[in-house]
Amino acid sequence: MPEPDAYEPTERTVPTRSRERAVYDHAQVHAILDEAYVCHLGFLRDGAPVVLPTLYARVGSRVYVHGSTGSRPLRTAGEGGGEGDDPGLKVCLTVTHVDGLVLARSAFHHSLNYRSVMIHGTARRVTDPAEKRLSFDALVDAVVPGRARDSRPANDRELAATGVLRLDLAEVSAKIRNGPPNDDPQDAELPYWTGVVPLVSGYGTPIPAPGLAPSVALPDYLAAL
Amino acid sequence: MPEPDAYEPTERTVPTRSRERAVYDHAQVHAILDEAYVCHLGFLRDGAPVVLPTLYARVGSRVYVHGSTGSRPLRTAGEGGGEGDDPGLKVCLTVTHVDGLVLARSAFHHSLNYRSVMIHGTARRVTDPAEKRLSFDALVDAVVPGRARDSRPANDRELAATGVLRLDLAEVSAKIRNGPPNDDPQDAELPYWTGVVPLVSGYGTPIPAPGLAPSVALPDYLAAL
Repeated sequence: MPEPDAYEPTERTVPTRSRERAVYDHAQVHAILDEAYVCHLGFLRDGAPVVLPTLYARVGSRVYVHGSTGSRPLRTAGEGGGEGDDPGLKVCLTVTHVDGLVLARSAFHHSLNYRSVMIHGTARRVTDPAEKRLSFDALVDAVVPGRARDSRPANDRELAATGVLRLDLAEVSAKIRNGPPNDDPQDAELPYWTGVVPLVSGYGTPIPAPGLAPSVALPDYLAAL
Repeated sequence: MPEPDAYEPTERTVPTRSRERAVYDHAQVHAILDEAYVCHLGFLRDGAPVVLPTLYARVGSRVYVHGSTGSRPLRTAGEGGGEGDDPGLKVCLTVTHVDGLVLARSAFHHSLNYRSVMIHGTARRVTDPAEKRLSFDALVDAVVPGRARDSRPANDRELAATGVLRLDLAEVSAKIRNGPPNDDPQDAELPYWTGVVPLVSGYGTPIPAPGLAPSVALPDYLAAL
């Protein structure tokens, strides 16, 4: 029986190496997904892999991926027509945070500290108007939480011009490496500095667009970043 | 005739949308590649796409990707045996930096500022011992420049246990979005804040490994980060 709060491992979500780094827990998987802006969406085109960086948003146990209806994955997914007979698009969606540089005494044990999530599945076009609007708001709030209700909503023309793919979180795993280097015991006396250099990220000062009226103040949800 | 300092566009390196964002110039493509730690390597496994985050290094017009010989892409690439009859592994290698959150007045024009590089090609196992050692040093120096000569070099056993894939930079493009939002003119008077929130990244204070002797000072190439 799968754990109720974890994704069930499958043949392709169990890593072939460093299995101790695999994580299936919902909370950790979702936290990694929610912290990033860009995922890397892999799909096939003419028999060859394509990896496209793209904005995405998680809503519960689904992920939405943004794209113009002219973009490659959406054209491919849409060839089946409506949702009922849409064959979908086989994808692998991966999200990665790099947290630190791991400097071992031996070249061999150099590494990175990271957190990544990999989702395997079949993405399908969102065609239901209510779900499409919900996914659109989620994608705007993925840029900055709170932004969807503080901008002009998409009109019908814009919604029609925006393709959205839905991918269910079912075959999912995270992989996490953290902590110090794993040098071999026999290297312990070597005279090289060893440890971790953390990578940090944050927000710079917001840059108003050229035409912004001085009367429009910076909203709280941006000032709080 | 292609520009001598640029990659020649091909059918799959010309984007289907936002073509004005495509860049083929060597200097810009290489700068994007050299700034990142992790690439997202896409390949096929059992007919489905896999997108694997992995450390990589550029050396001239080649990219090397690291992995244990037990890892999936290397096992697949290696099935042909030696280099001569190695059929290689079709891959798409993508590197992305997210530089800013683009907040338009309209939900529709929300975006991200980013720089990405996409490389299409066939990756092959590195089997020549000299090239393998060179690629190994490059991968360590990709973690921190200067580190390869300030750590214990890989011994023969470690080199044998480390698989490296080589991918030539031939079918390559960058895509860059920067600058302010592109709102529609009719939205110019809407009362929403608009502009860009920069994303910044940097290095934290190095954390010595638990067993590090106090006599080993932080090297200059780390203090300079």
